[in-house]
Amino acid sequence: MSQKQMQVTFPLNRAFTFVESGPVLLISTIDHGKSNMMTVSCHASMGFEPTLGICLGPWNYSYHALRESGECVVGIPGADLLEKVVDIGNCSGEDEDKFARFGLTALPAHDVAASLIGECVYNLECRVINRALEPEFNFFVLRGVRAWKNPSPKDGRTFHAVGDGTFIIDGEVVNLRHRMTKWQDCI
Amino acid sequence: MSQKQMQVTFPLNRAFTFVESGPVLLISTIDHGKSNMMTVSCHASMGFEPTLGICLGPWNYSYHALRESGECVVGIPGADLLEKVVDIGNCSGEDEDKFARFGLTALPAHDVAASLIGECVYNLECRVINRALEPEFNFFVLRGVRAWKNPSPKDGRTFHAVGDGTFIIDGEVVNLRHRMTKWQDCI
Repeated sequence: MSQKQMQVTFPLNRAFTFVESGPVLLISTIDHGKSNMMTVSCHASMGFEPTLGICLGPWNYSYHALRESGECVVGIPGADLLEKVVDIGNCSGEDEDKFARFGLTALPAHDVAASLIGECVYNLECRVINRALEPEFNFFVLRGVRAWKNPSPKDGRTFHAVGDGTFIIDGEVVNLRHRMTKWQDCI
Repeated sequence: MSQKQMQVTFPLNRAFTFVESGPVLLISTIDHGKSNMMTVSCHASMGFEPTLGICLGPWNYSYHALRESGECVVGIPGADLLEKVVDIGNCSGEDEDKFARFGLTALPAHDVAASLIGECVYNLECRVINRALEPEFNFFVLRGVRAWKNPSPKDGRTFHAVGDGTFIIDGEVVNLRHRMTKWQDCI
């Protein structure tokens, strides 16, 4: 598959659905021209724009690139990438090229310098819009500016970190749209 | 089962695992002496203390109780409660007693005035510790002060909101503790 076909555009105003369920994320940054990525499981959907918050601190190599560039790509990996994503979270981009080591494809983004991650189910190009909680809580608020979808992911199920070294893969999907009486305009 | 047996104490320093996977939450507050609850799917684990962030705005009836009391209980419902939790998110405590309507048990908490939700898999008593992002992003930072666990939940699986009216129930759990080489002290 050509790089171009690995990610196709997705409506930005529906991209909040990428993260609301709380999947483990890959955060792609660029540091002195080199693409890097890290694993983040502490984050929140904060609005439809989309707005999201992610926790990462100075002990993460990517922190400095995110802080200095003010940009990143948020990738949502599928369950086929579970072991790779855990390993990505257990090594540092300071020491190696993670895209090369893990056989993932860095694709050019449109609005930010950081790379899309070709194999992810979704990618969201983001800019940092607020750092008020960063000194105390290592919390960056991001605004999504362009959204991408993998038209044929190996496994479209995402996965979630419990925080104890176990991970939960998406199970049954239940459609309760008919019960969302108060929120019909949002869904 | 007596009320006392519905929730037993749980180690506070492991309570960050209640929310890191991004399950849909019930937020229990007390308003003029009346217990209420609402459904929240936009939230983040922010630290081991535990610290967490939740989004709710002035359009939510519970917002005012949370803002004025500075306290709440975060309940983590199991999959047996999925339809009830969705319905709780589609009506207002201004109009009715949700505990009575949905047949859920309000149990006394230890450190806050809000009620534990007996049927939830977990409950976390919380205090609001930061509101810097509340005016712009409707984001409250909470600190957990006491944690509870249901020793025999009907269904221990949690569920996640996609944001489009569909919900994902926890599927397969994968233990990758052996790969968490960098984070052995945390898991």
